[in-house]
Amino acid sequence: MKVEEYITGIRHSKYEILAKAITLIESSLKNDKKKAIKLIDKCIPFSGKSIRIGISGTPGVGKSTFIEKLGFYLKKKYKIAILAIDPSSSISKGSILGDKTRMNQLTNEKNIFIRPSPSRGQLGGVCNHTRDSIILCEAAGFNIILIETVGVGQSEIMVEQMTDYFIYMTLCQNGDELQFIKKGVLELSDLILINKSDQNKQKAKEVMFLLNNTIQNFQNHKKQTVMTNSAHNHSDTKAVWNCINIFFKENTLNGQIKLNRQQQNKFWIKENIQTEFNNLLFKNEYVKKQILDVTNTNTKKVTTRIIKKLIKEGL
Amino acid sequence: MKVEEYITGIRHSKYEILAKAITLIESSLKNDKKKAIKLIDKCIPFSGKSIRIGISGTPGVGKSTFIEKLGFYLKKKYKIAILAIDPSSSISKGSILGDKTRMNQLTNEKNIFIRPSPSRGQLGGVCNHTRDSIILCEAAGFNIILIETVGVGQSEIMVEQMTDYFIYMTLCQNGDELQFIKKGVLELSDLILINKSDQNKQKAKEVMFLLNNTIQNFQNHKKQTVMTNSAHNHSDTKAVWNCINIFFKENTLNGQIKLNRQQQNKFWIKENIQTEFNNLLFKNEYVKKQILDVTNTNTKKVTTRIIKKLIKEGL
Repeated sequence: MKVEEYITGIRHSKYEILAKAITLIESSLKNDKKKAIKLIDKCIPFSGKSIRIGISGTPGVGKSTFIEKLGFYLKKKYKIAILAIDPSSSISKGSILGDKTRMNQLTNEKNIFIRPSPSRGQLGGVCNHTRDSIILCEAAGFNIILIETVGVGQSEIMVEQMTDYFIYMTLCQNGDELQFIKKGVLELSDLILINKSDQNKQKAKEVMFLLNNTIQNFQNHKKQTVMTNSAHNHSDTKAVWNCINIFFKENTLNGQIKLNRQQQNKFWIKENIQTEFNNLLFKNEYVKKQILDVTNTNTKKVTTRIIKKLIKEGL
Repeated sequence: MKVEEYITGIRHSKYEILAKAITLIESSLKNDKKKAIKLIDKCIPFSGKSIRIGISGTPGVGKSTFIEKLGFYLKKKYKIAILAIDPSSSISKGSILGDKTRMNQLTNEKNIFIRPSPSRGQLGGVCNHTRDSIILCEAAGFNIILIETVGVGQSEIMVEQMTDYFIYMTLCQNGDELQFIKKGVLELSDLILINKSDQNKQKAKEVMFLLNNTIQNFQNHKKQTVMTNSAHNHSDTKAVWNCINIFFKENTLNGQIKLNRQQQNKFWIKENIQTEFNNLLFKNEYVKKQILDVTNTNTKKVTTRIIKKLIKEGL
């Protein structure tokens, strides 16, 4: 398929073509990569007009259900794209999201597009593709983009770096268990959502108090919100959306959204250069040979030697 | 201080000199770096003879207490070095281990050396220094090296890549909460320790059953053990040590320890080259300028352009 055909399809909001275009972006074939860059170039003028929302939390916290409720609430007014990033375990490459049938109710809605990311491959790479997928979805007219991820490794940081608003979902645990939540993730969040709060309202209140205390001490200059949420309570979904909406309006007006997205571009260019360069590095014959040498115990010394040679002779 | 003085001190097991030598290794000054490489070179012939043990788990799981008990049990027969890696949060750079007074009882023992890593800086770099610290400690005659880390981000993978035996500690949680444990960490572990098991023996049994079931499904070809542990039960400490000891004896005989350490060297050379190269990359004027350009929205395109230029013209 030609780049022009992709674009026509995307601009006419044809979901099959959008899906194929994302597959093109994710391809590692040289020819596809070239096409993908062209395609993104053509889509950029139509992009940037959506609200980009990141959602993270441990498995079982209720992310899918929450997204489903939010999708239902918004589908009449908005076109919603849901992109899921699934970091695999480092050894078995197994999928954490698994093959669970998720978000059944949404899959047949005409204003909703769902796309899980491939479960294999480097997290940085996967996330980078997702970033480009956002551009395609925006060019296809979606005005809300939800990026879902399981909170593993660096995935939250990656998702926060491609969205305007980051939601961290947690359960109604008691204080002792709160220490299990990574501090870094709380710091990244715009909204911390205490989910399934209907199961124990007293506990939910306690956790809310604790979390509110915790975020007071952060020095991140972010306006952070803590809320309780229950999938059975329609007004909760409304309240969350209200919170996102106000945030987006305020920060569009004051230019913060734009500034933030420019900062994110820098992050991703850095991330990309590193990845590409490292690939080149480990394809280099001299480097390969050095790494295979089992007598290399003084790794810092070997590194210095390799770097010196590479600077002198190039890759 | 001269390299020779460091070596004499280390070989005579002078703890102050060993501590200073580790500080030298951690230094980022160019001159210190050169000295450090020389020092490590001289220590390597005396290294490699210890049992290297990694210990991880969330804060509050009881790592320090466990290490204290193990230290007390082994201190008559062995010289033990305890090195702690403390990954900081990505924004506030705060220390997770904090200023808690930890392992009080051990600090004055003559056969025990304790060294926390600096809490700032890149995780890869910190871990790399710890790896060299192991070599110094071994040259100083320590025959058990314990590397402790809080389970944040990639820190477990790093610690597993510098030890012969990896212990993951968890609490006596119920089945629902087990999903909070990162699957990747369980896969890395040689021993999974269900701690504070005396607080609820029934639950501990259930968790043990669940974890045993979980590890059955891993395809990592590792012989993994699940055990319960209580700090109040001396025989638990003994049982853990027995387990480690058998593992180490078996795998020294069959050559697996040696092979594993050689693989680890490869991992660290790769890790080092990447870090050093990335530093060079982002010091490059052209790269710096490109990253600052806010009009770069098509990050893949920009990356391709930068890489092409760098390959042609060098760094």
